[in-house]
Amino acid sequence: MKLDVILPGSTIWIPERVQASYSTVAMLYDDKHKILVDPSHEGSMRFLEEEFEKRQLHPEDITEVLLTHFHLDHAVNSKFFKNASVYVHEKYRNKPYSKFGMFSGQAYQGMFNNVRDRDVLIKDGEKLFDSIDVIHTPYHSSEHCSFFVETENWGKVFFPGDICMTRIELFDVLRGLRTDKVANIVKEYYDKSDYIIFTHDSPYKIEK
Amino acid sequence: MKLDVILPGSTIWIPERVQASYSTVAMLYDDKHKILVDPSHEGSMRFLEEEFEKRQLHPEDITEVLLTHFHLDHAVNSKFFKNASVYVHEKYRNKPYSKFGMFSGQAYQGMFNNVRDRDVLIKDGEKLFDSIDVIHTPYHSSEHCSFFVETENWGKVFFPGDICMTRIELFDVLRGLRTDKVANIVKEYYDKSDYIIFTHDSPYKIEK
Amino acid sequence: MKLDVILPGSTIWIPERVQASYSTVAMLYDDKHKILVDPSHEGSMRFLEEEFEKRQLHPEDITEVLLTHFHLDHAVNSKFFKNASVYVHEKYRNKPYSKFGMFSGQAYQGMFNNVRDRDVLIKDGEKLFDSIDVIHTPYHSSEHCSFFVETENWGKVFFPGDICMTRIELFDVLRGLRTDKVANIVKEYYDKSDYIIFTHDSPYKIEK
Amino acid sequence: MKLDVILPGSTIWIPERVQASYSTVAMLYDDKHKILVDPSHEGSMRFLEEEFEKRQLHPEDITEVLLTHFHLDHAVNSKFFKNASVYVHEKYRNKPYSKFGMFSGQAYQGMFNNVRDRDVLIKDGEKLFDSIDVIHTPYHSSEHCSFFVETENWGKVFFPGDICMTRIELFDVLRGLRTDKVANIVKEYYDKSDYIIFTHDSPYKIEK
Repeated sequence: MKLDVILPGSTIWIPERVQASYSTVAMLYDDKHKILVDPSHEGSMRFLEEEFEKRQLHPEDITEVLLTHFHLDHAVNSKFFKNASVYVHEKYRNKPYSKFGMFSGQAYQGMFNNVRDRDVLIKDGEKLFDSIDVIHTPYHSSEHCSFFVETENWGKVFFPGDICMTRIELFDVLRGLRTDKVANIVKEYYDKSDYIIFTHDSPYKIEK
Repeated sequence: MKLDVILPGSTIWIPERVQASYSTVAMLYDDKHKILVDPSHEGSMRFLEEEFEKRQLHPEDITEVLLTHFHLDHAVNSKFFKNASVYVHEKYRNKPYSKFGMFSGQAYQGMFNNVRDRDVLIKDGEKLFDSIDVIHTPYHSSEHCSFFVETENWGKVFFPGDICMTRIELFDVLRGLRTDKVANIVKEYYDKSDYIIFTHDSPYKIEK
Repeated sequence: MKLDVILPGSTIWIPERVQASYSTVAMLYDDKHKILVDPSHEGSMRFLEEEFEKRQLHPEDITEVLLTHFHLDHAVNSKFFKNASVYVHEKYRNKPYSKFGMFSGQAYQGMFNNVRDRDVLIKDGEKLFDSIDVIHTPYHSSEHCSFFVETENWGKVFFPGDICMTRIELFDVLRGLRTDKVANIVKEYYDKSDYIIFTHDSPYKIEK
Repeated sequence: MKLDVILPGSTIWIPERVQASYSTVAMLYDDKHKILVDPSHEGSMRFLEEEFEKRQLHPEDITEVLLTHFHLDHAVNSKFFKNASVYVHEKYRNKPYSKFGMFSGQAYQGMFNNVRDRDVLIKDGEKLFDSIDVIHTPYHSSEHCSFFVETENWGKVFFPGDICMTRIELFDVLRGLRTDKVANIVKEYYDKSDYIIFTHDSPYKIEK
């Protein structure tokens, strides 16, 4: 399995004005699969398009979408990849999406309807595609998973998802400023990885 | 007709990363109508929701959506207002939306399909709801319109749309730094208005 | 002591492009004092100016600046308030600012030089101005403090600083997703407060 | 003269919250000179630092700073380059900076004081360093200049400055939607250039 980090994610939260955070989009691929990890949010659509063009990659080439969790800023662009199965933890199925807010509810329900018929449920401890370890990490939302992969081109790679969004959050863990279960998981995988692919930051090379 | 500026619009353009600009959302209303002028973009959804809650306003209360033009950052939230007719200039009907880009094309086509069956075509010189003057201003996109309204609570109000997005662009016109047809229209309506409602800035009170 | 939240802070972190996060600016005031809590960053300068104008408040009116910690996005605007003493935890004094990076180092050193001659050192357990409890919370940076104040107009108010930046981080604590020392402090003060003034979000009213 | 585009500029304007737009930073260099065109704003400082590190470039290596105009988002980082002369049009000298606003005034006056003793005045029609054509274009501010350079590695390059900030503004000119003096200058140099280096967008290759 090889890795291609297509677009690094960001945080834009301006209270009373705009929530435009969007997740990193990465692709894990081999001869048979082109797996998009977290296809991100409409805000990044335009430049995601430019990155696909540079790679001569088309939406219909994507065979699977793999979600860390079912939040809009990570998952709503799944709709653009109509040929892909969507891999996501089963806990995503039982949420009252339509009650999330008068517009958010509609947006979440639409995203759920789009994904429901092509979902593939994943669980803790599973190895996907002989390559991707699933770690259920329900510390950001109940269906949240992290991933660990040995890649051919980036070495061992940890995808924490939103339990550790940025290098600043990682440094807080490494300096012992955060000390709970999340911190332990992050430290454990930090120790065995060569890279961390953050959801809302650029990829981080671990220097040992 | 009364005016309520629900959320002021913004510009967020970070090349190679994110395009998250979103338009101002304003409401013109009387006993019979609640007209949303440019319902904006997903990025503003969350805080638009908070503003609707503060006003105890619901999506189904909106009777009409009125669009300055058919760009995503102005019009895509139309989908949340299912009871509303969508007023837009006829030129919007004949664009090759599906060819706008591999993801943008899908997003535009989806927006078009959502609006097509409930559109009401508007034209230059028309007065809508006995109150809103339509000025066809095809200098940003072919279907682009500006609006002028005498309101009960804000006086005379000019909605330039994206031919003059911010107060900085207005000042360029007033200082004579921009001198073409757009500048003439902006100056003409500046002279007869009490307020300008910018699409990507907060409302501007004209001091005389 | 009364409270006035002048500008709510935000997070803007776009990797490889821009770090423009800025802190909330709040004022605690009585007959003798106008204390600015975290004067924020240059990015918010323009609209901070508008808020000061609305209140007919001038930079020289500010008698004290009170810092949660000595990061640029919270403290660099201290330079605009030349009459103010700057209250900050003593740990701020011993950092190798000039080595923080080729530009950051210069910016930090300049901020330090500007503040050094008018600093007043604060410590854990102290009550400032007979009103403001200082809680040393070195979980974001070694000099970091949180504050707790009984105000006349907002009731009991907790200023966590950057140990809990947004309502989303608060919800993680309240749902038990974060469980360490920071979580305990946040819960303790949540229980005794009427409002939380977040550093990178709008003020939060605690419903009991 | 060779060109290196170090960081592409952006627009972030959220009314009543934050103005964090920052200009593109480019370097023109040969054996004797390292000329930084528009060193940008504090918001981009952190990632500008990363780009300098990647190139093993140091602030003291910069021999000249060349400004399109004297606005904070383009020029305030000049202070980091202490060895550099600052090239700027003479009109910058006579503005009432201290009256620009209670904080902006201080920021502008500080920037002026920092630059005043090392400024070199440039004028329309001049050729700088045998390579850079100066075009006085006072349509954004009175001291505003555009530049045109034949480079060894990018061909002929036009730096419009803020008279044409983004590719969207360029397309408005090319489609005839803008028709005044600014449009004429932009078209003239578009016709003779291989690239446009926008101030608030990524570089644009002209396809003929």
